Amino acid sequence: MIIVMNDNATKQEMEQVVDRLEAVGLKVHLSTGDSRTIIGVIGEKGLIAEQPIEAMPGVEKTVAVTESYKLVSRSFHQEDSIIDIDGVKIGGGNLAVMAGPCAVESMEQLLESARVVKAAGAQFLRGGAFKPRTSPYAFQGLEVKGLEMLAKARELTGLKVVTEVVDVESVPVVAEYADMLQIGARNMQNFKLLTAAGKSNKPVLLKRGLAATINEWLNAAEYIMSEGNYNVVFCERGIRTYEEYTRNTLDLSAVAAVKQISHLPIIVDPSHGTGRWKLVGPMSRAAVACGADGLMIEVHPNPAIALSDGKQSLTPENFSLVMKEISGIANLMGMKMA
Amino acid sequence: MIIVMNDNATKQEMEQVVDRLEAVGLKVHLSTGDSRTIIGVIGEKGLIAEQPIEAMPGVEKTVAVTESYKLVSRSFHQEDSIIDIDGVKIGGGNLAVMAGPCAVESMEQLLESARVVKAAGAQFLRGGAFKPRTSPYAFQGLEVKGLEMLAKARELTGLKVVTEVVDVESVPVVAEYADMLQIGARNMQNFKLLTAAGKSNKPVLLKRGLAATINEWLNAAEYIMSEGNYNVVFCERGIRTYEEYTRNTLDLSAVAAVKQISHLPIIVDPSHGTGRWKLVGPMSRAAVACGADGLMIEVHPNPAIALSDGKQSLTPENFSLVMKEISGIANLMGMKMA
Amino acid sequence: MIIVMNDNATKQEMEQVVDRLEAVGLKVHLSTGDSRTIIGVIGEKGLIAEQPIEAMPGVEKTVAVTESYKLVSRSFHQEDSIIDIDGVKIGGGNLAVMAGPCAVESMEQLLESARVVKAAGAQFLRGGAFKPRTSPYAFQGLEVKGLEMLAKARELTGLKVVTEVVDVESVPVVAEYADMLQIGARNMQNFKLLTAAGKSNKPVLLKRGLAATINEWLNAAEYIMSEGNYNVVFCERGIRTYEEYTRNTLDLSAVAAVKQISHLPIIVDPSHGTGRWKLVGPMSRAAVACGADGLMIEVHPNPAIALSDGKQSLTPENFSLVMKEISGIANLMGMKMA
Amino acid sequence: MIIVMNDNATKQEMEQVVDRLEAVGLKVHLSTGDSRTIIGVIGEKGLIAEQPIEAMPGVEKTVAVTESYKLVSRSFHQEDSIIDIDGVKIGGGNLAVMAGPCAVESMEQLLESARVVKAAGAQFLRGGAFKPRTSPYAFQGLEVKGLEMLAKARELTGLKVVTEVVDVESVPVVAEYADMLQIGARNMQNFKLLTAAGKSNKPVLLKRGLAATINEWLNAAEYIMSEGNYNVVFCERGIRTYEEYTRNTLDLSAVAAVKQISHLPIIVDPSHGTGRWKLVGPMSRAAVACGADGLMIEVHPNPAIALSDGKQSLTPENFSLVMKEISGIANLMGMKMA
Repeated sequence: MIIVMNDNATKQEMEQVVDRLEAVGLKVHLSTGDSRTIIGVIGEKGLIAEQPIEAMPGVEKTVAVTESYKLVSRSFHQEDSIIDIDGVKIGGGNLAVMAGPCAVESMEQLLESARVVKAAGAQFLRGGAFKPRTSPYAFQGLEVKGLEMLAKARELTGLKVVTEVVDVESVPVVAEYADMLQIGARNMQNFKLLTAAGKSNKPVLLKRGLAATINEWLNAAEYIMSEGNYNVVFCERGIRTYEEYTRNTLDLSAVAAVKQISHLPIIVDPSHGTGRWKLVGPMSRAAVACGADGLMIEVHPNPAIALSDGKQSLTPENFSLVMKEISGIANLMGMKMA
Repeated sequence: MIIVMNDNATKQEMEQVVDRLEAVGLKVHLSTGDSRTIIGVIGEKGLIAEQPIEAMPGVEKTVAVTESYKLVSRSFHQEDSIIDIDGVKIGGGNLAVMAGPCAVESMEQLLESARVVKAAGAQFLRGGAFKPRTSPYAFQGLEVKGLEMLAKARELTGLKVVTEVVDVESVPVVAEYADMLQIGARNMQNFKLLTAAGKSNKPVLLKRGLAATINEWLNAAEYIMSEGNYNVVFCERGIRTYEEYTRNTLDLSAVAAVKQISHLPIIVDPSHGTGRWKLVGPMSRAAVACGADGLMIEVHPNPAIALSDGKQSLTPENFSLVMKEISGIANLMGMKMA
Repeated sequence: MIIVMNDNATKQEMEQVVDRLEAVGLKVHLSTGDSRTIIGVIGEKGLIAEQPIEAMPGVEKTVAVTESYKLVSRSFHQEDSIIDIDGVKIGGGNLAVMAGPCAVESMEQLLESARVVKAAGAQFLRGGAFKPRTSPYAFQGLEVKGLEMLAKARELTGLKVVTEVVDVESVPVVAEYADMLQIGARNMQNFKLLTAAGKSNKPVLLKRGLAATINEWLNAAEYIMSEGNYNVVFCERGIRTYEEYTRNTLDLSAVAAVKQISHLPIIVDPSHGTGRWKLVGPMSRAAVACGADGLMIEVHPNPAIALSDGKQSLTPENFSLVMKEISGIANLMGMKMA
Repeated sequence: MIIVMNDNATKQEMEQVVDRLEAVGLKVHLSTGDSRTIIGVIGEKGLIAEQPIEAMPGVEKTVAVTESYKLVSRSFHQEDSIIDIDGVKIGGGNLAVMAGPCAVESMEQLLESARVVKAAGAQFLRGGAFKPRTSPYAFQGLEVKGLEMLAKARELTGLKVVTEVVDVESVPVVAEYADMLQIGARNMQNFKLLTAAGKSNKPVLLKRGLAATINEWLNAAEYIMSEGNYNVVFCERGIRTYEEYTRNTLDLSAVAAVKQISHLPIIVDPSHGTGRWKLVGPMSRAAVACGADGLMIEVHPNPAIALSDGKQSLTPENFSLVMKEISGIANLMGMKMA
């Protein structure tokens, strides 16, 4: 940490800061200029973070030098991590495609979706059984019945199942039916849920919060990893900005950034990211081109009668088209589509 | 709902839309212009919301005419609601002040804070026992021990206790010790937690999410009210914007807006809202001037040694000063400080 | 400036940085920790800013210690500046009210507005003769004819005139007719226009850009002041965020912040800031309560037939009401309404 | 336009609205539901836009049905426009690459940059002669001297020259030296400058404003086109969000969206868009993959000594690498790199 003192800070104020830091065992370096003093602080990260230096008299600001996450960082693990989901790999050159309806509505709808996405080359079936909805009066999902349908669809198609878990209480039941737990954008900083997911033995797909910084997102993954669960995959799904044409602003530079900062895989959800099915194709291509390890795409056998998010769902025909386009890019990027 | 058709939509596409709506019992009005057709849809709100019209061929966009919340709306309850917290009132001209440290650190710190804020005129003691923190390695709160200390401080000072609940599981224990449950910004759309708070018999302080629209915030309160718990108080605590000088951007226009849209009380947290103790005084005055029903302010007997958020905490002296300033404004606004 | 080196920066990389800085005459302090080196740089601000240190090998990031503005800062001028507009004062305890229609539409409309706002206690008549509009097909203002009407209205009422200047070319003509030049949000970083306004001998009202940081805004004022024109007044008018209920998000904490950082006066425009006339009253009260030196409010004799921004304009009756409310708050704050 | 009346609007209020619209010759359709009335308005776009309906009593909100731009729209011109810059084409399958230093610093630096980017396959030399800078004390560019150097570099390399014009006054001199006028992000709504560019006979590169919506951006282009200059190319360069890791948030979904809405070409500037040279490669690939018609990339022979934006500039080696990567993607997308 670096501490910048006010230009009219007194010698006594500076000494107070130094004393406080040294009292807890931290090392201190002073740089005294003509108009102000800068204090460099060296020592254990957690210890430094706990010191409320900015509230001390004479202090103008403090600047963090290192980030607070460790296990998610490439300095902790240099090679790309490969997450193995019961035989299907994500990361390290394996492009994962997760597709299916926004919500599980019925066995027929789910199975038809599953067959369509399987045929087009997806390895994962997505579909919400528990749906977080803005209004308490909107469709909230089929819950456990939906999980059973997902398991049935897996049995019949061989697809892996990824589905959202919305509270600590239902981690066990979702873990029983699903191959991968999804933590949604609204729960990215539901730290109790992150911890519970970290204690489960299931791989976790961690969506970025609506207004989460990359740094907060990495720290959320650290919550999971610090419980011993190293099978974490990030999912960029758009951030909230002032732009109204798209539902969210898909931040693909976050994908390239996370690939550089972390060893964990990252996939992209262009369906929620844009909220418009006509943008799903172009953004899927772009995602793979900038290094994403996979895609999560909404496909519905009949978007016009979907119970949620029909506007952003692809028809089976359009999904096949998108799959063809991305396979070209994946190939160019040296990636395998399992 | 209003449906705007594309300017090259076919007659058949228009009829498909109409048929679908009429099939579920909705009434439809057509306005046909030279270049495009507009369809007005009338009927039960929930039923309309379930129709995925935007995915149908020929549809350009849909526009919601009415909001999805009911119980929180002034059309449901014209008069200002007054929330009675075991004898202390919020709303209807009663200015509530909640003050205390960000986190409960020790009995001594808490009790000293409680005495200070009581002496200056606050009616509520705030203080986190469960702390949601960005990093898993940061101080996470004293948990149940912290709750016990809060209850003890209430016993000794007569202040009401408001404290955060971070998961469904701990709703009962927090409800046992606290007079009011706080739902924090990161959990504003943790719908399971909202529902659990709605099922408890405790008043709820609902903070606005970091990037929540006013509409989403009102819907979050609807989750609580729809469970039968009508004792909800909003708390504006700043939204996330590009501005870096302040920790968040305190959106006081949301206070004035919520007062017009809803009958529920709303208070303001200028400490988290600005992240700078020097801005707490001016923004407290502004909050009361624009109609807020109360304030939540961080006060620490010694901010420079606080375990969290020392930068934004007031000293006892500064808190007394702020209380004097706001009492002048409250008086002018015709409000009682209980 | 502080330079943070990578944790794997070589000694040679560090020396390269030091050499480059010393070569141009800057002083350097090293703080070497176990894992990384921090370099403090001291010397002339402009010289430091010119060094592209972040592109040098081994450098992780740089942190600015001091801001780049000088003349706008309170360290340059400790006392509140009072701007004298031909006898009417802004700042130093004088509350200025600027009111009138969004656009000058006709002599009748303008004069009626002027009389209304004068009667209610405003000292300035506002009204756009040159209107920056999103679409080229929208009403662009009466231009010089509008300026003539403003001057006529001044003659008949004694109000001072503040009106927008949208390009360098028209600075002379606007300066000829107006008492104060307004630089609009969209032109806040039109540096040529700032420079031209700085060279004129007219006081300048500098609106905050739609997405401008406080720091950028202060620097924009520095452009004007560095040309020798010290008569600058800031105007907060809302920033662009994701919130859609209000037209913009009025950032009153920026008002309190600017009052602390700078000696220049700052006023608030709640009409553009919220885009809703029902929020103008509450936000005007809040603005004065948090320290604003004045207000700019849209008033139209008949908002329902206004050519622009009717939705946010007050009727004469409502404006009188708002004036009464703010005079109470101004009084409490120890301010004179001239 | 659609007008939604309040649920307690009176019959008289509704009639007032209808009368006002019919008085100016607009056609009106009423849809009366149980609780509220909806009014559809049909007629000439500009005429509708001028009616301040939202300020009329009884009106809850209005919804625009059609956008205000015409010439930029695909409904006006179905085919992709191809902009011919003195023999080099942008759009219609021709990938344009504009590269060079952020600022023109000296003939040597510029020429070395030009040779490097030419050798790697760029067709345009970029470089600022007039530099808009946040602080008045930062390097403002070499101005006309810089333009002369650009022209000289063109003569020696055959590259086309694109450079920024920052005010109306210098449009003629920039047009004299450059092949294409760039309008920067800060000037995207400098309507006088747009109009002047529209009156020049030079192709215009229109960067997106820092906080501009897609709709505002398209309208800005309409300003240029409505003056008769149809040679407009958009440039996405990142928008301002809360994320701090990147300088801006590059919004590639805007590229895909603009390609669908408009016939004009659009290119991407990943250098300003991310502010980090390490992200330029991945985002260049992504841009081409989602349909961009070109790229603008900062290249400096020695970024570590660049006078501005060294942090985001590529070295010659890295630029060659990026060019190789994008040529693969361009090929896959069926595009020619001229």
